[in-house]
Amino acid sequence: MPKKQIGQQRLLTLLSDFGDRDVYVGIMKGVIAQINPKLTVVDLTHQIPPQDIAAARFSLMNAYAYFPVGTVHVAVVDPGVGSKRRAIAVEFAQGFLVGPDNGIFSGVLSQSLAMSTTVTERSRSAGYAYAAVELTNLNYWRTPQPSKTFHGRDIFAPVGANLASGVSLKELGQEIDPASLVKLDIGECQQTTTGVVGCIQYIDNFGNLVSNIAGSYVQGKTWSVQAAGLSIPGCETYSDVKVGEIIAIVGSHGWVEIAINSGNAHSKLQLNLQETLQVVLS
Amino acid sequence: MPKKQIGQQRLLTLLSDFGDRDVYVGIMKGVIAQINPKLTVVDLTHQIPPQDIAAARFSLMNAYAYFPVGTVHVAVVDPGVGSKRRAIAVEFAQGFLVGPDNGIFSGVLSQSLAMSTTVTERSRSAGYAYAAVELTNLNYWRTPQPSKTFHGRDIFAPVGANLASGVSLKELGQEIDPASLVKLDIGECQQTTTGVVGCIQYIDNFGNLVSNIAGSYVQGKTWSVQAAGLSIPGCETYSDVKVGEIIAIVGSHGWVEIAINSGNAHSKLQLNLQETLQVVLS
Amino acid sequence: MPKKQIGQQRLLTLLSDFGDRDVYVGIMKGVIAQINPKLTVVDLTHQIPPQDIAAARFSLMNAYAYFPVGTVHVAVVDPGVGSKRRAIAVEFAQGFLVGPDNGIFSGVLSQSLAMSTTVTERSRSAGYAYAAVELTNLNYWRTPQPSKTFHGRDIFAPVGANLASGVSLKELGQEIDPASLVKLDIGECQQTTTGVVGCIQYIDNFGNLVSNIAGSYVQGKTWSVQAAGLSIPGCETYSDVKVGEIIAIVGSHGWVEIAINSGNAHSKLQLNLQETLQVVLS
Repeated sequence: MPKKQIGQQRLLTLLSDFGDRDVYVGIMKGVIAQINPKLTVVDLTHQIPPQDIAAARFSLMNAYAYFPVGTVHVAVVDPGVGSKRRAIAVEFAQGFLVGPDNGIFSGVLSQSLAMSTTVTERSRSAGYAYAAVELTNLNYWRTPQPSKTFHGRDIFAPVGANLASGVSLKELGQEIDPASLVKLDIGECQQTTTGVVGCIQYIDNFGNLVSNIAGSYVQGKTWSVQAAGLSIPGCETYSDVKVGEIIAIVGSHGWVEIAINSGNAHSKLQLNLQETLQVVLS
Repeated sequence: MPKKQIGQQRLLTLLSDFGDRDVYVGIMKGVIAQINPKLTVVDLTHQIPPQDIAAARFSLMNAYAYFPVGTVHVAVVDPGVGSKRRAIAVEFAQGFLVGPDNGIFSGVLSQSLAMSTTVTERSRSAGYAYAAVELTNLNYWRTPQPSKTFHGRDIFAPVGANLASGVSLKELGQEIDPASLVKLDIGECQQTTTGVVGCIQYIDNFGNLVSNIAGSYVQGKTWSVQAAGLSIPGCETYSDVKVGEIIAIVGSHGWVEIAINSGNAHSKLQLNLQETLQVVLS
Repeated sequence: MPKKQIGQQRLLTLLSDFGDRDVYVGIMKGVIAQINPKLTVVDLTHQIPPQDIAAARFSLMNAYAYFPVGTVHVAVVDPGVGSKRRAIAVEFAQGFLVGPDNGIFSGVLSQSLAMSTTVTERSRSAGYAYAAVELTNLNYWRTPQPSKTFHGRDIFAPVGANLASGVSLKELGQEIDPASLVKLDIGECQQTTTGVVGCIQYIDNFGNLVSNIAGSYVQGKTWSVQAAGLSIPGCETYSDVKVGEIIAIVGSHGWVEIAINSGNAHSKLQLNLQETLQVVLS
């Protein structure tokens, strides 16, 4: 185990598809505590659908900005574990990202427009706001012979704990080209004559259907959503309509979404992920 | 963000209907850490059925007394978010309550009989054991323009974090009449010639059917419960009957409840919330 | 409440079958904070199937070794609560165990082969690597009259918090014979002419079927698993086969298991707990 630099303490978050029946998450926290028992660990969610990188990307993209600058986000949705996919860490203006190089961080990084003071000369000259390394320094792993199936325990949690304890990015491994990081494309919005066409990119716990159309597009305007053969009025708040009525609003994550006041829009409308909808301005 | 008074540190609990698939709870913890990264946050539960204020009221009422004096309980089950329902904070002998004014705290406050030393002159003279404010001081919000759908992130979490960091109740907003707080009536018990009639107020994770009849009513007596056409003997412990047998006991929260030794009473008896049962003394 | 010795701080973990709908786990954390608000508490899992001591035993056995030495593990899967089953605490080389004496710790203790320096003379002379006490000292309980149904709150959480705060094992109660602790037998593996026959001892969140055959048995060999009428090739990693194919691997907990690349082996093969399988070496 490397020397620890415990003077500096950053918050550490965990996100995974491990669920809460098994002890995988608990084990990662044990590994973190073995490195630095004083770290504070926050669970983002461990209920990402198994191996659903897109859902993980969406969740992380919506959450990271609410944490203190310097927070270390460890994300383990990793269907390629044991294959040749790279293990990476990224430093950007808001903090650090640790996990597999499979697109899980591409949502966060697409929002990371401000040039960070922490990027390396190589990243800066390439016009990137972040720097990335491949996790090749085995000194920061739990063991030089990691499990073939649980890099969360053997690589990502210990690397995250070391970052959160003050270890610098460049100690963790070989710098890599930011342009080489895997990106996950969820489809762009398309401008039309009357508005914009997008798709459903997430369905939350309440059955709200979250689109990939930014709320700023409808702000201060009169608007509606065309979806599932319906025209759904754009409103300010749930209580603008009666209980049970369908509504379009700008949701808490800042995206246009379809909801039902005190009900479940997903069950009622039978709309699924990736299906299209259209915002119409009037 | 206001100046923090981090000298004093109180525990902070969270309760919501946000579930664990989404990152809403994680985001609230990020907001709390932005205000004071040293606070300890405990999850009471985030599995309150969506918008079920009665279940939230029951859960909070059963939990608060086990926390240190001064603990701040932030509760976000908030179907009226974005409407004109008030956002409030309450100080009582055991600590603080932060959330919407929709009856979610009425169970806790109905038990708060001891006159607190912390109530204001106004509350005291009105005979109340607690003081309440409406959260009108925008300095303690995350943003003066909060989301219309996520006051947990923009108002309740930051206000709770400030309270837990030592900010006083009266700084948070305008004092309001304790009598004006919304109450949630779940039905009173009715004395009969042979016992007492009550109803099922909660069904727990094991399928135990929890009534609103206090355990003290049957303590030291011979008793049974009439429900679902059955007469169920009152016992001391699960192991008083065989595996699979129906039993009435005083449960861990102190209420008369119906259970099945190593089984699920809710599935077996098909009794639901609000349905009546009767305790008979013999 | 006894005097606290807060100088020494150990990590404390919780494992139970309480689920996450109810506030039972939150209440245990409140009780712990009342004793020592500075303790760090980690959830192993609270989704053990109700009263499934075998699943709890398996989970704890797989997790404990990843925590710092001295960690206190409080485990509450307790179908015998309120009966005469003993409440115990155990000290072993890795740390402490607190819970009911029903076999829940027998997996951990079967692995605890190294002679601890902390065992008492009595345990050592009996050849045991651990010492155990029955929790008879009421000073360390939350109340001398504990609930008949929730010893997690009234006995195990407060005893765990005191241990984690530096109280010694022998203060907690009467020393008992380590040989008298309840053991839970899940079936031994049987050597055959071509390999070894074992059984499924756990099914994880991904539907992976975990056997009781140690991964070390197949390491470096060519092997396959006979189960459900199929011969399943032993592989190194999920990505050795195509998406949807059945595979046998050594899983992250170190046991031979059957999985499906990006799928659910439990649903597909209809194999259940305790069913037999055979590893064949070739």
